[in-house]
Amino acid sequence: MQSRSEVTRQKILSSATRLFSLNGYDGTGVAEICEAAGVSKGAFYHHFPSKQDVFLNILNEWLDQLSSQMQAARLATHDVPEGLVAMSGLIDQVFQMSRNHYSLFFEFWIQAMRHPEIWQTAIAPYHRFQTWLAAILQSGINEGSVDPSVPPDDTSRILIAMVLGLLLQAFFDPNGAAWGDVTESGIKTLVTEFSRRSL
Amino acid sequence: MQSRSEVTRQKILSSATRLFSLNGYDGTGVAEICEAAGVSKGAFYHHFPSKQDVFLNILNEWLDQLSSQMQAARLATHDVPEGLVAMSGLIDQVFQMSRNHYSLFFEFWIQAMRHPEIWQTAIAPYHRFQTWLAAILQSGINEGSVDPSVPPDDTSRILIAMVLGLLLQAFFDPNGAAWGDVTESGIKTLVTEFSRRSL
Repeated sequence: MQSRSEVTRQKILSSATRLFSLNGYDGTGVAEICEAAGVSKGAFYHHFPSKQDVFLNILNEWLDQLSSQMQAARLATHDVPEGLVAMSGLIDQVFQMSRNHYSLFFEFWIQAMRHPEIWQTAIAPYHRFQTWLAAILQSGINEGSVDPSVPPDDTSRILIAMVLGLLLQAFFDPNGAAWGDVTESGIKTLVTEFSRRSL
Repeated sequence: MQSRSEVTRQKILSSATRLFSLNGYDGTGVAEICEAAGVSKGAFYHHFPSKQDVFLNILNEWLDQLSSQMQAARLATHDVPEGLVAMSGLIDQVFQMSRNHYSLFFEFWIQAMRHPEIWQTAIAPYHRFQTWLAAILQSGINEGSVDPSVPPDDTSRILIAMVLGLLLQAFFDPNGAAWGDVTESGIKTLVTEFSRRSL
């Protein structure tokens, strides 16, 4: 069972996610988050030093959740190239997120751009994710399933780019394509090339 | 020589670009644009029906400029796969844009998301660009340099995704990688696979 304190924390995070998505980060105050979550300002500041800290926690939890799901997909396959394709299958869930969540995603970039202190903190989970993906590619090289000429760091950036770039387009043109399928096809194209370069 | 009217129009567009980038779309009023450009409100409304129209004109001119440069790069090469790689070499210029211009790029997505009428108008140049790229892929299939199993529409989305996704990361982590090189390498990887599938 979750402790009462944890329940309060989650209530604050989910109300804030909804309000940031609806009204933007700048358009949402701590008072409104407290009202929507049904908690006192005292309780809010017990859990989070600032609105910015709430924002970064939302981002971190989202990335952690995504990388655990990806890790599970990866472990269910027998080599790295297959694992990467299975991971890309999860992206369809991300595409299914409401437009409201997309909004938060762009809001995050805008805030990171305007406020160096958000950027400093927010770049850490991005680096963590990118490094994690590079390590997976390195393990593919080690097991012989990924071509040894593939540079793990830049290649992880290329894989992340494919997904981010399709997310942007899917947001912009939701009915323009079967975005989940396009993502799987884009990732498969890259992975095929990464695994067969030496052939 | 540019007409006086065209000079006024360009002054409005460049002042607006700077102000939107600095203070955001919502944080910039027509009065401020007029003041920065040194033009009267009457002159402003002679050229543009609204602030939103200025915003869409900035976007359109930027995309037109990019596609003319890409067209020129494409025409200087002897087949479509080579042309696509040459086009990706231009992306480095986009990466060199100041953070201020990045800001406008995200602002554009946020605005399109919040205002359906901006979205309706803004999706047209995106579709135009995507269709143009799909036609290039189709001409590659026709000339025999691109594998006929490659679907031009989804493949154009995949190529756009690579560039957009690397732009996002380059903004976020400017010193993390040689982003121009990573883009060329990502596009090369895709193009190699698109041109050799049948081999």
